[in-house]
Amino acid sequence: MPKYKVILAEPKFQGNIGAMARVMKNFGIKNLILVKPCEIGDDCYRRAMHAKDVVENAECHETLDAAIKDLDYIVGTSGIDTKSDKKHLRKNLSPKEFASKMEGITGNVGIIFGRENYGLYNTELEKCDAVITIPASREYPILNISHSASIIFYELFCAQGDEKEIREVSGMERDKLLDHFESLLDAVSYPEHKKKKTMVMFQRILGRAVLSKWEFHTLMGVFSRTLNTLSRKSI
Amino acid sequence: MPKYKVILAEPKFQGNIGAMARVMKNFGIKNLILVKPCEIGDDCYRRAMHAKDVVENAECHETLDAAIKDLDYIVGTSGIDTKSDKKHLRKNLSPKEFASKMEGITGNVGIIFGRENYGLYNTELEKCDAVITIPASREYPILNISHSASIIFYELFCAQGDEKEIREVSGMERDKLLDHFESLLDAVSYPEHKKKKTMVMFQRILGRAVLSKWEFHTLMGVFSRTLNTLSRKSI
Repeated sequence: MPKYKVILAEPKFQGNIGAMARVMKNFGIKNLILVKPCEIGDDCYRRAMHAKDVVENAECHETLDAAIKDLDYIVGTSGIDTKSDKKHLRKNLSPKEFASKMEGITGNVGIIFGRENYGLYNTELEKCDAVITIPASREYPILNISHSASIIFYELFCAQGDEKEIREVSGMERDKLLDHFESLLDAVSYPEHKKKKTMVMFQRILGRAVLSKWEFHTLMGVFSRTLNTLSRKSI
Repeated sequence: MPKYKVILAEPKFQGNIGAMARVMKNFGIKNLILVKPCEIGDDCYRRAMHAKDVVENAECHETLDAAIKDLDYIVGTSGIDTKSDKKHLRKNLSPKEFASKMEGITGNVGIIFGRENYGLYNTELEKCDAVITIPASREYPILNISHSASIIFYELFCAQGDEKEIREVSGMERDKLLDHFESLLDAVSYPEHKKKKTMVMFQRILGRAVLSKWEFHTLMGVFSRTLNTLSRKSI
């Protein structure tokens, strides 16, 4: 089972931080990371109830990049999904799909929740290996963040039951493979205006597939070999 | 599908009523019944966000008996479960079990949530046809009522089945992409004895990621471009 870390991006209401801490502890998750949080006081601790320790032990960071630095797999949350295939940034997992992907995984997995009024910015979603959207009523699909969290953590808790094959995810390997992919796009003069979008798409495909170390290394081998062949031929 | 009604027994904090209204509307449930509620004011409406109508249309009753009079099936919620068969009052359903029991049912189904500090009394649980308990950490299994509610309503919503995301997979596109991948391996003189295994691995990665048509075409574009660059350079 991975070690889950919950990241709140710029929470504006301390009550939500407390509510989040409580529901984390309800489902056995203890690592809270806050990015530029509001002030934390009585209202937060009142809502945290018996999870004050989760708030007290929370890490604080000035930027999201600093908060996710050591994570191997990063998942964002978004209230907005879309049916359009083109909007690859929003080809999202349900909580159940996410939980089943995490079965048998080890490593540090970060789950990012966005601002109460705006959620996560696109630039933040682009850093994520996958995005979770909770299926909800079309009339009013935007859940409070601690409500979203309770559903996601519940699914993770229910999925723990049986540990099957262990797969290790590694953020370092993911980053190397993405670098190789980018080099490949450059080597074949991929249109500059499509590059960013294609890169994010590739990261999301890998994110949905959750690669093993062996798979990473094998794919990396294919890319290296391709890049070498391309550069040898250009001499 | 039954018509769900949500009953709050003597809620003490108006914020919880608002939070409950919001998460009800998030999952398409609109009928709220309050039994001897606390005062309802700004804090409630602030937490309700775009579900103020649910609060405004709530029924109020002096007793639980009056609140459940017209219901066909009544389910209580409890944070405490027990494995003992003797304590039949607490042989409880998980949210998923409850949701699957409701499939294909019609009628008025009431879901009762208890007091913030005490839950439902035994005399109240006795009036219920079933009791739901949410599986949670032994260390701290007591959820906030709107968190419990969000999990239960989410399971009911998912069990409805209709609003699922439709993703089209196409075997033809998968096969074309695999052909491209094989051509790439050949073009870079990939070791013959590893080829089969790497092909299968690539297919499995695609299988786990479940690609959209757009993703297939974009990846195919990257491979075509690479193959063209390779063959141009070899002339």
